[in-house]
Amino acid sequence: MREKSFWGWGYQDAFPDDDGRRALGEMAKLLLGLESVELLPLPRIDAIELSEPRKRAPEGLPITSERTARISHTYGRAYGDLIRGFGGDFANAPDLVATPESEDQVRQILDWCDESGVAVVPYGGGTSVVRGVECPRDRADAVLSLDLAKLDRVLEIDRTSRLARIQAGATGPELEAALAQEGLTLRCYPQSFEHSTLGGWIATRAGGHFATLYTHVDDLVASTRTLTPRGTIETRLLPASGAGPSADRLILGSEGTLGVITEAWMRVRPRPLYKLSASVRFSELSAAVRAARELAQSGLHPSNCRLLDPAEAALNKVVEDGSSVLIVAFESDDHPLEAWMSRALEICEGAGGKHRGAKDRSQEGESWKAAFVQAPYLQTALVSLGILADTFETACTWSRFEELHAALGENVRRALVETGGGGTLTCRFTHVYPDGPAPYYTFVTKAERGGELAQWAAIKAAAADTLMAHGATITHHHAVGRTHRPWYEQEVPALYREILRSAKRVVDPQGLMNPGVLVEP
Amino acid sequence: MREKSFWGWGYQDAFPDDDGRRALGEMAKLLLGLESVELLPLPRIDAIELSEPRKRAPEGLPITSERTARISHTYGRAYGDLIRGFGGDFANAPDLVATPESEDQVRQILDWCDESGVAVVPYGGGTSVVRGVECPRDRADAVLSLDLAKLDRVLEIDRTSRLARIQAGATGPELEAALAQEGLTLRCYPQSFEHSTLGGWIATRAGGHFATLYTHVDDLVASTRTLTPRGTIETRLLPASGAGPSADRLILGSEGTLGVITEAWMRVRPRPLYKLSASVRFSELSAAVRAARELAQSGLHPSNCRLLDPAEAALNKVVEDGSSVLIVAFESDDHPLEAWMSRALEICEGAGGKHRGAKDRSQEGESWKAAFVQAPYLQTALVSLGILADTFETACTWSRFEELHAALGENVRRALVETGGGGTLTCRFTHVYPDGPAPYYTFVTKAERGGELAQWAAIKAAAADTLMAHGATITHHHAVGRTHRPWYEQEVPALYREILRSAKRVVDPQGLMNPGVLVEP
Repeated sequence: MREKSFWGWGYQDAFPDDDGRRALGEMAKLLLGLESVELLPLPRIDAIELSEPRKRAPEGLPITSERTARISHTYGRAYGDLIRGFGGDFANAPDLVATPESEDQVRQILDWCDESGVAVVPYGGGTSVVRGVECPRDRADAVLSLDLAKLDRVLEIDRTSRLARIQAGATGPELEAALAQEGLTLRCYPQSFEHSTLGGWIATRAGGHFATLYTHVDDLVASTRTLTPRGTIETRLLPASGAGPSADRLILGSEGTLGVITEAWMRVRPRPLYKLSASVRFSELSAAVRAARELAQSGLHPSNCRLLDPAEAALNKVVEDGSSVLIVAFESDDHPLEAWMSRALEICEGAGGKHRGAKDRSQEGESWKAAFVQAPYLQTALVSLGILADTFETACTWSRFEELHAALGENVRRALVETGGGGTLTCRFTHVYPDGPAPYYTFVTKAERGGELAQWAAIKAAAADTLMAHGATITHHHAVGRTHRPWYEQEVPALYREILRSAKRVVDPQGLMNPGVLVEP
Repeated sequence: MREKSFWGWGYQDAFPDDDGRRALGEMAKLLLGLESVELLPLPRIDAIELSEPRKRAPEGLPITSERTARISHTYGRAYGDLIRGFGGDFANAPDLVATPESEDQVRQILDWCDESGVAVVPYGGGTSVVRGVECPRDRADAVLSLDLAKLDRVLEIDRTSRLARIQAGATGPELEAALAQEGLTLRCYPQSFEHSTLGGWIATRAGGHFATLYTHVDDLVASTRTLTPRGTIETRLLPASGAGPSADRLILGSEGTLGVITEAWMRVRPRPLYKLSASVRFSELSAAVRAARELAQSGLHPSNCRLLDPAEAALNKVVEDGSSVLIVAFESDDHPLEAWMSRALEICEGAGGKHRGAKDRSQEGESWKAAFVQAPYLQTALVSLGILADTFETACTWSRFEELHAALGENVRRALVETGGGGTLTCRFTHVYPDGPAPYYTFVTKAERGGELAQWAAIKAAAADTLMAHGATITHHHAVGRTHRPWYEQEVPALYREILRSAKRVVDPQGLMNPGVLVEP
């Protein structure tokens, strides 16, 4: 078993050694125009001071108050989490950590928490970037982190209907390995894929692999099963229904505030037999945006339609000539894709794009994929060099994008200069819809040693306030958690938030499920 | 202005004269093997006895207690509605009918009802087939039917983002006419299209034009605006968001129980430039089902993929040789469709289908379309001949379809024999998904004069109980209303229904919005 980092992204052995850090530091110096980059001392797990657990683990349940378990369940993997973890601050550690091996045990643990007034934080892969799995010690007499890791199996497959019943704690690689044995795949690849879990994806409405059509995990969910403090909500397995408001759509995005998702029937498919990919360069970003819009509106439904602005393309080593790039891909388990790709490239050419034709796998697409998976590891390594790197993402209508993008450029860059003396802001589209894109921004600057959290908060506020002012969403697929709540409350109608609160009171009258996330109890 | 029938479907002038009724009677005799069919006397509006309104219309608001308005707002257009209307039974007439001309007036009317304890039944086209717009006189001291007909405009178009802001009272033809002026279309064609409204479609999760992808109106909704007794819920106009559970998805399917939808931003598109259609015959229904499934799972996304069983094909004059028929169509405003259709026909051939190639418009497709729009008119005419004709619809996984279909055949036919001495039951698929079809059944039998409602209830129960026993849904797109509630309560988790009730208490604490529909207050 590869060990996970107690403070940073993913596997511990993926963290660079000092030579690797120095090389990365040189790149950061170039990128940010810095004179020097320091290798900061790494945190040691044995130096962490933990308070005593405020509640004893009960007998006969898989609950522990063991130190390492508490430390590793303290934080998600937001920038602020990395900073606090790197600094050895684990004051928010849960009092208890549970690792149920069955749904029955989940029920017993929930019942015990309900009787004992212990708050419950459902925990999948621990990859939240919005403080969604952070333990709110101030909100309850004791907090238990409920780790679903052992509910990791594919329980049942209905091949005719292309459905699989999967436990919520299965990580991306775990569930894909089990499905692959049957020649099937879910094809939901959030950036956190390596560590995050099906239940986490559903709870947070994760963004997946496909740039069009099946953009969120929402579209792949056929039914869900959720244990709440007051009973179970299991929806009927149906391809579609019109019987009242959809119950699954309340579970999707509930972020652990209503209960614990234990399993779901998911729409799976055979592995693709046909793939075509092309990358198209544009000398102007606006031309690339136009091509992305026309593709999104074409009805061709590309599996990938990822726009990279010039800086993003360079940063990820896709192209480095100042072009914007549109990576277009199609995949199918049923039919060759020449007609689809040919029309897609025609659209791109019409918008002024240049390309070298389509291939089974384009080099640019592969470069992109490698960079995509490595990005969270890179962020962690940069923290250890005193570099602040983070992302935010949104969605807006096509007609609002240009002004939004300009305003973000102005306001976020100003915040980067004011707090870090400079920095970079890059943009890509992760998903595109007929009515608008989902832009995704990455910013990098020099961290203010000791003041990282305040610095980050200032930049984040500049970004989020701009999103709100321009009619965009605070999150397309990163979720709300605790971080996005102030803007979530601007975005979502007050009366609807009252409805969510009333829903919570029905299933969680004591307000013990993930308190502080999404809505107040 | 063409006048609408006060008891039957649609326009009064579309009701056949006695010669037309006799011709229809001859067909019904043949179909059902009857010795005679009687032309029943038609109801006269001046013979209807109405009770006095229990509440006086207030001054200064567009509210009336006029007799014709009350009669025409008494019922939807379910079979039982036709029977009661045909029999001159308007005991359930609303006390008052409101026809606001602006959203401000909707607000004033809701406020007056809230102060006065008057129940409100939102009314679009009045085409509900599940008693969704029936006025529940026993549930309140007085009932007001709130007719949105005058909120019928397209208010705003964002051409770049392919979005249109449309008022909820616009009927299908009204909104399509306004969009057509800009070369755009919504392409949402429920069978009720001629009379039903956008608000009604959203409130009931109507099924639309497309057999795949955009099957429900849900998929075309970008944001909604709903007036409730306790305030307005207006969602942000976004192509997509991951910020908590979707508010629009609570409004979709709320069936007037939470408030009155006044307008929505809808996803529109240019009118299609390319169309290809083909009809494929299969000697066995099971082979046609297999072809439909493989098409649904192919990723080709046909705009039409409508399976007709042999009796349905014959009844609608599509083919009459005992074949099952699959009507397959593609449409696009962007690209020619030969590659799509060619692969679709290959799939059909692989399942044993025979066809004569694809055309811009296939004759079978056109026959089907004509029959589709006329069907509700036909049902009304049949009522006047003492023939019971009705439909029910569902969705289930592919792996459950065969057994469900066999059980429906057995149980519904038994009910037809027991209550009508025989009859026909036919099946088609209206929509198909990768994980299952949406089968739609039509049954026809001789009505038991004077006992039609009980007869119908026995047949309906046989069908609905079978749906529940086989893991299907009580409705794919006809909604729940008052009719489907007993089975809805079996289908949907009890705890989720508690959540809906709590949602209703937040926005409608007096329980005045469409009482009796969906959930209890």
